[in-house]
Amino acid sequence: MIKVVLIGQGNVASHLLHAFENSTTVEVAQINSRALENIPQSDVTIIAVSDDAISIVSNQLENRNGLLVHTSGTVSLESLTANRKGVFYPLQSFTKDTTVDFSSIPFCLEVSNADDYNLLETLAQSICSKGYRINTKQRKKLHMAAVFVNNFTNHMYTIGKDICDEHNVPFEILHALIEETASKITSISPAKAQTGPAKRNDKQTIKTHLENLNLQQQEIYKLITKSIQNN
Amino acid sequence: MIKVVLIGQGNVASHLLHAFENSTTVEVAQINSRALENIPQSDVTIIAVSDDAISIVSNQLENRNGLLVHTSGTVSLESLTANRKGVFYPLQSFTKDTTVDFSSIPFCLEVSNADDYNLLETLAQSICSKGYRINTKQRKKLHMAAVFVNNFTNHMYTIGKDICDEHNVPFEILHALIEETASKITSISPAKAQTGPAKRNDKQTIKTHLENLNLQQQEIYKLITKSIQNN
Repeated sequence: MIKVVLIGQGNVASHLLHAFENSTTVEVAQINSRALENIPQSDVTIIAVSDDAISIVSNQLENRNGLLVHTSGTVSLESLTANRKGVFYPLQSFTKDTTVDFSSIPFCLEVSNADDYNLLETLAQSICSKGYRINTKQRKKLHMAAVFVNNFTNHMYTIGKDICDEHNVPFEILHALIEETASKITSISPAKAQTGPAKRNDKQTIKTHLENLNLQQQEIYKLITKSIQNN
Repeated sequence: MIKVVLIGQGNVASHLLHAFENSTTVEVAQINSRALENIPQSDVTIIAVSDDAISIVSNQLENRNGLLVHTSGTVSLESLTANRKGVFYPLQSFTKDTTVDFSSIPFCLEVSNADDYNLLETLAQSICSKGYRINTKQRKKLHMAAVFVNNFTNHMYTIGKDICDEHNVPFEILHALIEETASKITSISPAKAQTGPAKRNDKQTIKTHLENLNLQQQEIYKLITKSIQNN
């Protein structure tokens, strides 16, 4: 049995709590980050609070035993004050009130003492997740890559929906294409999967599209078209 | 039994042929667009050739009976020369050598004679697809929206993979996030699903990311961040 203390009450903490409660190999206690007194002993203490609060919480846990980890994509391992420290970062965008299937979520794992890697890996496996050994520098780059494939991609969907709404076309017609685009790159590289007027340098279509977009959309269309053609 | 003649040998034609051959309610014959003589009679003639060639092929079929349709997202209905004409546009990005499940692909349908709508809808249903009544103007806007949600999204994946490759991080770590981002917008609008440093106006993270990107990536990062914040 791995004893876990989970500090925080946000999205990540809630989803982790739920997953650990369903695991037969983990015993978990959730603690409010504003009430850090008389915390039970544990093998792993997980700080699942906002990035800014991680070092503050860590400082209050100075004399604690066991492995201390945070769950952030951007905060360095060194911002934790503990002898045995690590990172337990689930690479996913968590939304409140949505159930999360951890079996498909990879965890980026990092430890200060090599001996602790197995403990974190076992913890990830206890909720059916796969662990990857990723250092702080790599994790920060990965988080940057995630901004493109998640946040910026989602904004492309927003623009697509804006165009549909403006012309009374149901956005759901595009759902199958969106799913296909996302699943295709699990079998071929996105560079190889690239299609469309930019890739073909179909000047007439590009011109017509630009004439039918608003200024902000035009700027984005031109820049990404240029970037696809430079690739 | 609906008799179909399918003109063309590209990706769309190949996938449609395969689907019709598996349908019990359609009888299909494939014709090369360079051999338009002695074509059998049919209820529907589908011109599935490149956009530029559609009107050329259509002109060669001037005296043909039945309904004449093309499969393009961008070519207007009027570019067909026939009494009974229509559009049978499967909104998907087809790749050679990949099997296509038409049951998840929507068809945009348009007809010059209202009486022909049912015929096209039945044809879509014969391969388990759903038909949507979309006119030429709407179809062109939809095609433009598809450039954002498919081609431009795929380029965001390419940049994400470039960043991973550069720092020896396996791109597969991002697959689950990519799938989740795509599937989330089938239940909530992309505008509501938007997260990330741009949305939160997290200036420090934005600054750090910009310092770690190449010039082309920086330009894209800045512009999309601005667009998310203006939304």
